[in-house]
Amino acid sequence: MFSSTPNAKVLEIVAHKIAPYIHKTPVLHSQAINKIAGAKIFFKCENFQKVGAFKFRGATNAILSLTKSQKKQGVATHSSGNHAQALALAAKQAGIKAYIVMPENSPQVKKEAVLAYGAEITFCESNLAARETTLAQVIKKTNAHFVHPYDDYRIIAGQATAAMEFQKQTPNLDFLLAPVGGGGLLSGTALASHYFSPKTKVFGAEPLEADDAFRSLEAGVLIPVENPQTIADGLRTSLSQKTFQIINKHIEQIIRVEEREISAAMRLIWERVKIIVEPSSAVPLAAVLKRKSLFRNKKVGIILTGGNVDLRCLPF
Amino acid sequence: MFSSTPNAKVLEIVAHKIAPYIHKTPVLHSQAINKIAGAKIFFKCENFQKVGAFKFRGATNAILSLTKSQKKQGVATHSSGNHAQALALAAKQAGIKAYIVMPENSPQVKKEAVLAYGAEITFCESNLAARETTLAQVIKKTNAHFVHPYDDYRIIAGQATAAMEFQKQTPNLDFLLAPVGGGGLLSGTALASHYFSPKTKVFGAEPLEADDAFRSLEAGVLIPVENPQTIADGLRTSLSQKTFQIINKHIEQIIRVEEREISAAMRLIWERVKIIVEPSSAVPLAAVLKRKSLFRNKKVGIILTGGNVDLRCLPF
Repeated sequence: MFSSTPNAKVLEIVAHKIAPYIHKTPVLHSQAINKIAGAKIFFKCENFQKVGAFKFRGATNAILSLTKSQKKQGVATHSSGNHAQALALAAKQAGIKAYIVMPENSPQVKKEAVLAYGAEITFCESNLAARETTLAQVIKKTNAHFVHPYDDYRIIAGQATAAMEFQKQTPNLDFLLAPVGGGGLLSGTALASHYFSPKTKVFGAEPLEADDAFRSLEAGVLIPVENPQTIADGLRTSLSQKTFQIINKHIEQIIRVEEREISAAMRLIWERVKIIVEPSSAVPLAAVLKRKSLFRNKKVGIILTGGNVDLRCLPF
Repeated sequence: MFSSTPNAKVLEIVAHKIAPYIHKTPVLHSQAINKIAGAKIFFKCENFQKVGAFKFRGATNAILSLTKSQKKQGVATHSSGNHAQALALAAKQAGIKAYIVMPENSPQVKKEAVLAYGAEITFCESNLAARETTLAQVIKKTNAHFVHPYDDYRIIAGQATAAMEFQKQTPNLDFLLAPVGGGGLLSGTALASHYFSPKTKVFGAEPLEADDAFRSLEAGVLIPVENPQTIADGLRTSLSQKTFQIINKHIEQIIRVEEREISAAMRLIWERVKIIVEPSSAVPLAAVLKRKSLFRNKKVGIILTGGNVDLRCLPF
């Protein structure tokens, strides 16, 4: 079922299957932000999702799709944070062991949450090579089943359900923006829009400091970034083969934004929508504010990816 | 209509009258907080109300209740912040002038909002005497109609609508808690509960550093506090004759909490509910966590009063 790019029917099955386990998150808006942007912006609040991030959707689908023997051995992954929490909780709810490899510099609040969900953490350095080596060691030791944070059609299909739900709550969006890190959310969003709301243009939004998606799309081949420095800690990862392929086919444009634009947009959401979002969530609003003429008077959807932020280290 | 304590019919009329102008705010909960508290807690999110605070309810009712000649002269008030914003916006929406006296040490974000709503600010020192003297000067000059932040049955009736809405969204609460500063919200909440949900016990929650309501109820007479030092800037005011009378008659108990308990509860709401609330909003949760045995396994409603907080000066 998940050996190739999920089709419309697969997405519908997944949405139905995970519905009892996830929150249907609200859509909020702010008149003040609409005035500033000159557009009608709708925020899909995945910061209110379980574990505080959309990642719980994909992780839940992955766990529900395991075979019996996979369930017995448990699951393992590497993640800068939200996928770790998501897999840990989804596994815990199914009574399955979870082994998580996390970069040492992950936000403290994310480390604590993973431990609270009963998973076993192994720390590593903050780069892809270190993650993969450490994960290989963990899997060798435990025989656990690897659930990649995004290079996995089970994950991509799960993340697609955020946009599917959003489309029902707020139909006829002219634009739909999601941030892009590893590309699980953006590729799922692209598929959901392609199948169920083909008139909606889907854009990715990316920190200039971690612009591998922009450069990969320009080049037509995957170009990973090495150790990017951005406050959007959820977007430090690079696209994978599976997410690149979908994004390359379906995404109109990636808009890149600077660090100060991310923190300004984050602050605007905090002050005007009165909700806690993490820096990654603010990247699409920063993109809309940077390219106002593109979105003027349009109906724009933004997926707010998560709300797990270390309150002791705010960027403003 | 507003010359004495509002009765059930008056409250129903007010709720109907202001409904088109206010937001119906959502009720949220957090499994993590319920686990910590050992109770089922429901948060009425007035931080999502227009101007970011419940105060917009009372101010709207006051503005809608003005006579023609009062409308012509405009309105004036003194306020540490949210009432100022609320009256300014309610007046602006009705095309009425607003003159606001504010303490110099009000949060910057609140000053800016009042100006953005087109009101005229006169600054004063942060004590009741200075507020009242400055206001008298403003009124002498402008002939504006004074709308007191809480010693006014129009305001009390407006604030009561938050609890009325809450009761419909979350029926059969065992307890309902609101913070107490000047007492407009708590007295309105007490009336709403008395008329429409008499089995619900209403408690006030108050900073120990500004415990005039606790001490006034103990003594049976109004005992104002002088220049209290609490991070809950919305609760630095003291009860008035009208609010004291209602609270003295209907409130079971005032629970007092310490400053560190307020900031810990505020942080818990930010981290777990993923919403922005100001320190005053966190006082009732601090009270529930301080007196856990009282609320164990009960259905507890908390009115989150507002979300206007200066992000540059967080208490954690």
